This record gives sequence, C-alpha cells and structure tokens, in this order.
Amino acid sequence: MPRVSQDRLDARRREILAGARACFSRHGYEGATVRRLEEATGLSRGAIFHHFRDKESLFLAVAEDDAAEMVETVAKQGLVQVMRDLLTRADDVAETGWLGTQLEVSRRLRTDQEFADRWAARAAAIATATRDRLARQRAAGTLREDVPPETLQRFLELVLDGLVMHLGTGRTTADLAPVLDLVEEAVRRR
Amino acid sequence: MPRVSQDRLDARRREILAGARACFSRHGYEGATVRRLEEATGLSRGAIFHHFRDKESLFLAVAEDDAAEMVETVAKQGLVQVMRDLLTRADDVAETGWLGTQLEVSRRLRTDQEFADRWAARAAAIATATRDRLARQRAAGTLREDVPPETLQRFLELVLDGLVMHLGTGRTTADLAPVLDLVEEAVRRR
Repeated sequence: MPRVSQDRLDARRREILAGARACFSRHGYEGATVRRLEEATGLSRGAIFHHFRDKESLFLAVAEDDAAEMVETVAKQGLVQVMRDLLTRADDVAETGWLGTQLEVSRRLRTDQEFADRWAARAAAIATATRDRLARQRAAGTLREDVPPETLQRFLELVLDGLVMHLGTGRTTADLAPVLDLVEEAVRRR
Repeated sequence: MPRVSQDRLDARRREILAGARACFSRHGYEGATVRRLEEATGLSRGAIFHHFRDKESLFLAVAEDDAAEMVETVAKQGLVQVMRDLLTRADDVAETGWLGTQLEVSRRLRTDQEFADRWAARAAAIATATRDRLARQRAAGTLREDVPPETLQRFLELVLDGLVMHLGTGRTTADLAPVLDLVEEAVRRR
C-alpha cells in the first residue's frame, strides 16, 4: 500500500477514535447509537465501519488506545505523576472523554463477562508497568521498605481508581493536589 | 392508619427496595426495565408503583437508603472502618447490590444533571459525617496535625471511591487489607 494512502487511513482512524471517544463518554456504550457516532465523527456509518468491524470493536479500540498511553506514562513517570497530570488537565481530559471511557470500561467489566475477558490483558499491562516502575524506585532507594511493594502498588492503583471516579463524576479538583502529596509521601522512604 | 397495616406497608417497601437494588446493580438504570423489576421483586408493576411514583423515584429511594446507612456508619466508626467492612462483606455487598448502586449513581451524576442536583444533598450529608468524625479524632489527639483535616478527609473519600470502583468491577479483595492499614497510618498521628 502506498505511503500516502496509509497515512490517510491512519489519520481517518484517529479521527474516528476521537469522535467515538467523546460519544461513548457522553452517552455510555448502549447510548452511543450509530446515528450519534455518525454525528460525533462527522462520518457516515459506512466510513466508520470500514475501519472498525462493529461498535464493540470501536469501543475496545478507544479503550485500548487509552490503556496504551497510560502504560507509557506509568513506565516513564509513575502512577502518582499520571494522577497529577490528570488534575492539571482535568477539563481537557473530560473533554477528550478519557474519564468517561474509564468509567464505561468499569461498568462493562461488571455487566459483560466477554468484555471483561478481553480487557484483562490490558489491565495486566498497566499493572506490570506500575510494578516495574516501583521495582526501579526501590532499587534507587526512594521507596519505603517496611511495606511490601505489592501493597504500595495496590494502594496507588486504588487511589487512581478513586481519582477516575472523582473526576468522571464532575466533582471539583481544586483541593486534590495536597491529597496527591499525601499519597506520594505515603509510599516514600522516610 | 392501623399499626399492623403500616408495618405491612413498610415490609413491602423494604422488599421492593431489596429487589430493585439487585436489579439496578445488575442491569444499570436503563437496563432495569419494568419487567425485570417485576421479576426481581416478585411483584406486579401495579404493586411496585403503588409504593414508588416511578422508576426514577425507586432508584433514588435505593440510593438514598444506602447513603443514609453510610452516614450512620461513618459517624460511629469512620470512613476507614466503612472500607474495612466493605472488604469483609465484599461478596455479600456485591450480592445486595450496594456497589452496583454506587457505580450507577456515579454514572448518572455524569450523564443526568437533574439527578446530580437531587443527589447533591445526600453527598453533602456523608461529607459532613466524615468531617465531624475527623474533628472528634483531632480533638482526641489521634489525627496527624501537619496536614489540614480537609486534606485528610479528601484523601479518605478518594480511597473510598477507589474501593467502590475496585469492588464494583469484580476485582479481588484478597490483598486489600494491608492497603487499608497503610491508608489508616497515613492519617494518624505518628
């Protein structure tokens, strides 16, 4: 396939994902009808489903995109930094639908076993990135050593889940920065 | 109204709430059709809507019941104890639908402004119970004093949100007890 053509296909794919992300976030999986997906992407259903087999595949692609970006950030900067970034970009994040997607993923994990199975591999990748990062910090001597790293990891993951829920339900972020300081202090060597 | 009759009405109301809670938790608000509510409660739509004006009122009654119970527990034992109880009763809690209701509340806060307005008063009651409890602990000298109580409160609320999300999406509770020890230690006087 010629290079230009591939570039255009990739750009179209990203365009569809951006529109679909906003649509799923706003209306939920069931509420994101094909008509609404057409409106959100500005494309016909024919164009959308030329790139994605069905709505299920489109939703998974959106969620997987988000998970991949998160793995990358965790590896480079750790989970607390991911949370700080979320605070800083709270309005923007809500805008692009990341939070809505996370909440929708959570809901479908609860109500749809098949989806849960497909999602398990993505969740494992984020957990692995977090564990590797903590292992490096421990080796560097910046992590507290009186608590097993697995416990620190679960603690950070729990706070991130809480932050996703907090932001996703539209509550204020105004006073959360000192809370994240507290979280960071709780895992650090004294 | 004679006493016996009132008792029977109350019992019937509790019966409807229990069935509806399981139904909303399992299918979500939109998915909990009147037919499914009939199956879950074992009662006809006529009997159900004799007690509750409509589905919206029924959902709010379920959510308000849960919020009232939570306010009571927070006042007596604090938020960390609420979280410990959630872990201990995780299977049972999932069974009775508390977590599903919490997640469904979260989703509707995001997608339904009118619901968000009606819910705000309940959320405020839980926050007030938590603040009062922390104030008593501070007076008793068991709370750390180098961090403002508001920050400690937001920290605990964030972890609770995370726990609701964690349990609500069916993830394991096996290793969360030491995480809650860490959370408790983080708010205590050293």
